[in-house]
Amino acid sequence: MKNQTLKVEGMSCNHCVNAIESTLKEIGVKGNVDLNKGSVEVIYDESNINLEAIKEAIEDQGYDVV
Amino acid sequence: MKNQTLKVEGMSCNHCVNAIESTLKEIGVKGNVDLNKGSVEVIYDESNINLEAIKEAIEDQGYDVV
Repeated sequence: MKNQTLKVEGMSCNHCVNAIESTLKEIGVKGNVDLNKGSVEVIYDESNINLEAIKEAIEDQGYDVV
Repeated sequence: MKNQTLKVEGMSCNHCVNAIESTLKEIGVKGNVDLNKGSVEVIYDESNINLEAIKEAIEDQGYDVV
């Protein structure tokens, strides 16, 4: 398992937290969103998914991974 | 039909817009949220519901009607 923290812009409320965490869960990734820091910690299995696909999933929800 | 614009604090993104508009729809109220202005225009039938109940429905979603 790999653990990485991403900076994500555009998250503003608990709906955003849920949207991101649910999306990540669907692709088998555990996400911990920190609204105050504007960050998402992602825990994933590198043999299943890569970081680029995780970033795309977050961006598809309308947020910017910076 | 009565038309009233409420000032609402705490709305920050399109998820918030959807949450409020969906909640209002459930109680038979048409709501138009303006995120930039922090306002919700509500259009409702006074013989069905009063403004106090509408404010409560919005506050139950976690927002402040001011």
